Amino acid sequence: MNTTVTLLTDFGRRDPYLAETKAALVRQWSRFTDERPWPRIIDLGHDLEPGDVAGAAWFLERVARQFPDGTVHVAVVDPGVGTSRPALAVHAQGQFFVAPGNGLLGFLARREDLEVVRLDNPLYHAAPPGLPLSTTFHGRDIFAPAAAHLAMGAPLAQVGTRGCPADLGPAPAPVRPTPERLGTIVWIDRFGNALTDLPRSSELGIELAGGADIEVAGERVSGPVLAFAAGTDDEPFWYWGSGGTLEIALRGRSAAARLGLRRGLVIRRVDP
Amino acid sequence: MNTTVTLLTDFGRRDPYLAETKAALVRQWSRFTDERPWPRIIDLGHDLEPGDVAGAAWFLERVARQFPDGTVHVAVVDPGVGTSRPALAVHAQGQFFVAPGNGLLGFLARREDLEVVRLDNPLYHAAPPGLPLSTTFHGRDIFAPAAAHLAMGAPLAQVGTRGCPADLGPAPAPVRPTPERLGTIVWIDRFGNALTDLPRSSELGIELAGGADIEVAGERVSGPVLAFAAGTDDEPFWYWGSGGTLEIALRGRSAAARLGLRRGLVIRRVDP
Amino acid sequence: MNTTVTLLTDFGRRDPYLAETKAALVRQWSRFTDERPWPRIIDLGHDLEPGDVAGAAWFLERVARQFPDGTVHVAVVDPGVGTSRPALAVHAQGQFFVAPGNGLLGFLARREDLEVVRLDNPLYHAAPPGLPLSTTFHGRDIFAPAAAHLAMGAPLAQVGTRGCPADLGPAPAPVRPTPERLGTIVWIDRFGNALTDLPRSSELGIELAGGADIEVAGERVSGPVLAFAAGTDDEPFWYWGSGGTLEIALRGRSAAARLGLRRGLVIRRVDP
Repeated sequence: MNTTVTLLTDFGRRDPYLAETKAALVRQWSRFTDERPWPRIIDLGHDLEPGDVAGAAWFLERVARQFPDGTVHVAVVDPGVGTSRPALAVHAQGQFFVAPGNGLLGFLARREDLEVVRLDNPLYHAAPPGLPLSTTFHGRDIFAPAAAHLAMGAPLAQVGTRGCPADLGPAPAPVRPTPERLGTIVWIDRFGNALTDLPRSSELGIELAGGADIEVAGERVSGPVLAFAAGTDDEPFWYWGSGGTLEIALRGRSAAARLGLRRGLVIRRVDP
Repeated sequence: MNTTVTLLTDFGRRDPYLAETKAALVRQWSRFTDERPWPRIIDLGHDLEPGDVAGAAWFLERVARQFPDGTVHVAVVDPGVGTSRPALAVHAQGQFFVAPGNGLLGFLARREDLEVVRLDNPLYHAAPPGLPLSTTFHGRDIFAPAAAHLAMGAPLAQVGTRGCPADLGPAPAPVRPTPERLGTIVWIDRFGNALTDLPRSSELGIELAGGADIEVAGERVSGPVLAFAAGTDDEPFWYWGSGGTLEIALRGRSAAARLGLRRGLVIRRVDP
Repeated sequence: MNTTVTLLTDFGRRDPYLAETKAALVRQWSRFTDERPWPRIIDLGHDLEPGDVAGAAWFLERVARQFPDGTVHVAVVDPGVGTSRPALAVHAQGQFFVAPGNGLLGFLARREDLEVVRLDNPLYHAAPPGLPLSTTFHGRDIFAPAAAHLAMGAPLAQVGTRGCPADLGPAPAPVRPTPERLGTIVWIDRFGNALTDLPRSSELGIELAGGADIEVAGERVSGPVLAFAAGTDDEPFWYWGSGGTLEIALRGRSAAARLGLRRGLVIRRVDP
């Protein structure tokens, strides 16, 4: 028994909310009287912009599959907390996902082995001692307790009632690269690199691999280079990033700052 | 044996101090030759403003009771490190607290089952290999070693000598809500929500529950609403927060920025 | 089996890279079918400036020795990722170090019991499911897998081929304090204290201990004081810091801001 629970939120780290979510996990585990070691908690990230559901979805889709089978992923970016959006637990491809049904898990919709439950079993809701269930903090009172039980081996059907893929909320439109719209910038990282959603393994990705120019923000960018150090100091370049998609960088400084790159910008193919 | 040690500090995360505190825990545990799994370390928060003892006390009082019995809470906001303020370990309501006696643990003073010791047993002080005991980093050399031993089951009396509640330092004055001073803003969170200390369960809290206006920073605020999404976009509202006290928010943006809210501001009842 | 893996990077905490590095550790551990509890992961720090190899080296040298024998330290500040700089695993004084050979581990060069291997065994490289090995993220695909195996007891020679101390990259010049150059500021902490590299145990350190003035940034600073609270509010002072070297501070506020201190500034002895 070496299970992992991961946490991805927009809580930041200054407020008590992240600590309370972890307390909710540990409190459930302390009720098991057996000798099993408790699951491990791993922080995926807590610095998403408040309410950035799309960013959380991109992050989780990229990172979740890198964890082993049996991992329980708790993702809480939940601007609609307390409204009618369902609270969900999902089993897909050997892992568990616990999150609001606001599109955060939309990327799972195409999985064949998908099981969805709505976390409406009050036996698995839990407020801290002395407090009523909150309407504004389901991460602590609904998502964490469900995740705690799943990580200890509870079956999905036990923590909620059967839902359906539509409960996941809006699914992202499938990406169909064209030369006019190879892809979109989906993340700017700390180093100022721009990550796009154009897969290396797509038809157009394979075409570009031999060497091609792209255009973004009115600027022409050549590639692919094999490593950052292969780029020049003054010219931005593109390369196949560690997530399997096209990225744009500048050696030793921020391409995003230099070129004015930001999430949502489109990259285009440029004829040589 | 599934013990937890929590850490709450004003160390930030860029400097080596937090890592050194964790090393001090692990180093003590490595000296136990038995096969028990080591306790788990959970970060409560490290981004308190330097020296913000009151903020740390509020944070710890809110979060500590959400952890199970046996948890060891280490809290280090210690601007008087190296002066005569005592270093303490406390047992209260089934949990342990390790912190300076500067008021950080003042909220425990009213607990009936309180046991306090001063961490003056040099056998439980420990500097890293090759260094003398520091006068400026008791988190690493005094608090962490004591916590490490408590988490492995050492009795409180072993790590120090008997102290008294006065060692805790200043206790917060009990909150007595009046219509003119329902409470005070005690925290502004990442979302710009203002958390106050007016309990939902107080007499005045119960009075307000049916619907009432309050005034803060010269602005009238209505409530309670049941969830963020129930509020309007332009008007701030109040609601019962997840900590059981009155909070003030604005849908989708920062009420604190819009209304100029900050810690210490008083909320008043307004006649309808 | 209570091993620890520490992580020190310039990844920040907003991007997916740190989470992916941890996933790489856990994924390797999940392949061990035995019942051993997995090693513990401890974050040393992730907020180093991008590419700050010297800062990472200072941080790791200070903190690593505070962990117990058998600890595996993974340090990834790697601006030359994908170039010819080797990827290394090192055994020194009972601990393991996994890092690029760019000088980050240069401080180990003088250790007598040093063993170095180059991480060129493809059996111990691993990309996430569905992705090729990256050229830009060796932290995830090369360093973490090697560290995962070392933490589970793999011998150093298994994860790579024999290297030599020169692979570590540039070693820091030995510090030789003189009155004209007692030392250099090597870190400014969150509190605005300036940490230097002048050891308390050096000959000049011992001379200063009785009381001496130093000069830094054109300002005269007296010391040593025994604790922060012993300093005055207006005058900066120096003291022996918790790392065993001279530090400069101001009571209750930032000495760095007040005096314009920054990394690299030299401190000099001033005749009384």
